[in-house]
Amino acid sequence: MPVVAMVGGGQLARMTHQAAVALGQRLRVLAASHDEPAALVTPDVVLGTHTELDDLRRLADGATVVTFDHEGVPAEHLFELVAQGVTVSPPPQALLYAQDKLAMRRRLSEMGLPIPDFADLAPAADDGVDAHTLLDGFWARHDGQIVLKAIRGGYDGRGVWMPDSLDEAQQILADSGAADSALIAEQKVSMRRELSAMVARSEFGQGAVWPVVETVQRNGQCAVVIAPAPDLSDDLAEEAERIALRLAADLGVVGVMAVELFETAEPGPDGGRLLINELAMRPHNSGHWSMDGAVTGQFEQHLRAVLDYPLGDTRSRAPVTVMGNILGAAQAPTMSMDERLHHLMARMPDAKVHLYAKGERPDRKIGHVNVVGGPGSITDPDYVAAVRERAERAAHWMSTAVWTDGWDEHSDG
Amino acid sequence: MPVVAMVGGGQLARMTHQAAVALGQRLRVLAASHDEPAALVTPDVVLGTHTELDDLRRLADGATVVTFDHEGVPAEHLFELVAQGVTVSPPPQALLYAQDKLAMRRRLSEMGLPIPDFADLAPAADDGVDAHTLLDGFWARHDGQIVLKAIRGGYDGRGVWMPDSLDEAQQILADSGAADSALIAEQKVSMRRELSAMVARSEFGQGAVWPVVETVQRNGQCAVVIAPAPDLSDDLAEEAERIALRLAADLGVVGVMAVELFETAEPGPDGGRLLINELAMRPHNSGHWSMDGAVTGQFEQHLRAVLDYPLGDTRSRAPVTVMGNILGAAQAPTMSMDERLHHLMARMPDAKVHLYAKGERPDRKIGHVNVVGGPGSITDPDYVAAVRERAERAAHWMSTAVWTDGWDEHSDG
Repeated sequence: MPVVAMVGGGQLARMTHQAAVALGQRLRVLAASHDEPAALVTPDVVLGTHTELDDLRRLADGATVVTFDHEGVPAEHLFELVAQGVTVSPPPQALLYAQDKLAMRRRLSEMGLPIPDFADLAPAADDGVDAHTLLDGFWARHDGQIVLKAIRGGYDGRGVWMPDSLDEAQQILADSGAADSALIAEQKVSMRRELSAMVARSEFGQGAVWPVVETVQRNGQCAVVIAPAPDLSDDLAEEAERIALRLAADLGVVGVMAVELFETAEPGPDGGRLLINELAMRPHNSGHWSMDGAVTGQFEQHLRAVLDYPLGDTRSRAPVTVMGNILGAAQAPTMSMDERLHHLMARMPDAKVHLYAKGERPDRKIGHVNVVGGPGSITDPDYVAAVRERAERAAHWMSTAVWTDGWDEHSDG
Repeated sequence: MPVVAMVGGGQLARMTHQAAVALGQRLRVLAASHDEPAALVTPDVVLGTHTELDDLRRLADGATVVTFDHEGVPAEHLFELVAQGVTVSPPPQALLYAQDKLAMRRRLSEMGLPIPDFADLAPAADDGVDAHTLLDGFWARHDGQIVLKAIRGGYDGRGVWMPDSLDEAQQILADSGAADSALIAEQKVSMRRELSAMVARSEFGQGAVWPVVETVQRNGQCAVVIAPAPDLSDDLAEEAERIALRLAADLGVVGVMAVELFETAEPGPDGGRLLINELAMRPHNSGHWSMDGAVTGQFEQHLRAVLDYPLGDTRSRAPVTVMGNILGAAQAPTMSMDERLHHLMARMPDAKVHLYAKGERPDRKIGHVNVVGGPGSITDPDYVAAVRERAERAAHWMSTAVWTDGWDEHSDG
């Protein structure tokens, strides 16, 4: 059976290993230590770091394919591996568009796909025009409704700034120059909500999309996912799926990809109401619901895609599934994680809990809970709201040891 | 988080590890080598054998609980572990009834539970009456409709004989005496089919049953499981569930247990139509469907039970789920397992495949396929038959590289 090697030993690798076990494989991971979430559960661990070519070479040795739990691997290393005959999926020329927010926006513009207005603030980027002058202009054009983003390396709210004044924006730009971290400015969109279209594409070229989901962000990172997105018109759902399939094909993605989208509050000037926000070329938080809520989960699908197996059925297994992230609390509860799990199981015997075996730090993603709705109709707002309330209540309990509905887990009533 | 240690490194341990990963744990296994199915996928492997007390001690060191992937562990070793303060689940005094077919039948008789007629053929067992004389009488009483079973150590058809003549029966008994392996004789029941009632019981005493399933045996071992059992009356289903819950409680089981049952062709003399065949106190082949077909799978439930967590929801996720075992073919196909998997995925994108990474030997269980039915009614025979046909076709393909419906996987049509 094939050997899949994954760069990174985090929770995405951990959950990919679970899927690999069913397929008669096991996952090999590149991890910094044996304490990382995936390294704790697979025996095939290469100790090292993704920035060292030699470590990547040791990971790839004898593997059928090299893939990723995060996108932060230097492209030159990946091109070197490819030159040596290693299969890298997604290939580095595709991964670029998940690594580099500027390259992604330029490419999507060329493809005619809908994205918010943006400006490159890299020093002397635009024919020698000073970046601060460009920022002045971009600020004025959008009445100060702008976002600054690091071109490389941001995630979960890091590398994203929402300045309240032009002075603050200029200061962020100045600091980024000192930090040698180039920025783009992006129009802040007036939106109804955020969506995600998760897609898989195999080496052979087969594509498959899951139902489009709604993602709820808090403090700049994903907190809740509702699958499928409630009250999404068939037209918009189909447009989102078409965008994801086209991007996967045109960029040459191999593996799963999340296309994060804005659904705008008002129809835009182009008549479109969807704007593409970011791409992630790996299993993604917005796809965790699929582990319990879809016929084929994203981790199994990622393995199928990078190994060039035919893709699995992406249909939902229930009218609605809601995922709530378990985040490290501002102050870790005195009640142990194990005891919290005990109480959650007592209260919600149907909740599907996924823990990552990570230390609890504020806002760190340490697990998630899926609540798969039973029979009912997605068009009934009470039904979706009830499933969502249970998922959020479960996740909040696991994070904080506090029940949002005031339940006392040690009382008799 | 707790550490669960499992005696044995086979496929049951492998799949328990998958469930442990979701709960923030990993499984520690006692395996003879690093090539065993579970040892291939977990880093926490104690090399050794279940018959060595020292190896069991090393397994138990620092573990929250010791449990089993098979029942063949000497009871005296387990009592020794318990005496040293180790939590063993199920406890040895309960496990006895899964290890010893005679002790099980005597206990169930005392409890007034329905079992086929049986006789102890251990040498000089019954007040000094010779075993061969006892066998003569038992044969006559049941018109030669008898089965001989080894009291200890049989599984998957081994340790079970169906003699065609009294001479053959007496020879089997004589051989068993030479092999120092005591036998019982059991009435061969005229039955409609075999059923299994899978139950879990936690240390705290909570019990939970899954829907009763039909098990289809071939060559003495499980080939297909249909969940729930089609056309089972509510009364019989309830009786089977009550038997399983009562047995789990009265025997002091902690963990999951399969109660294998016969549904007789005719109502018996007691008015009952269910007879208890065997008990297995561990995750069991008849529960594999639950991995994809129930809200809580048997492997997660076993962990919950032995760790004294509240038990999970055992409801079905679909009107019917059918499991087909992938068995080693009489002659291993020239097409690799990997290529067979590729073709199966192409033909059945919804099939859930579980491979154990075992070598292919004739009739060896090397994996299974679950097909989870979509919407439909369990009372519609065509519906169940269609799901079953797909599961059996998939499993047969994976075993033999032959499609039962004559499909040519390399043709265009």
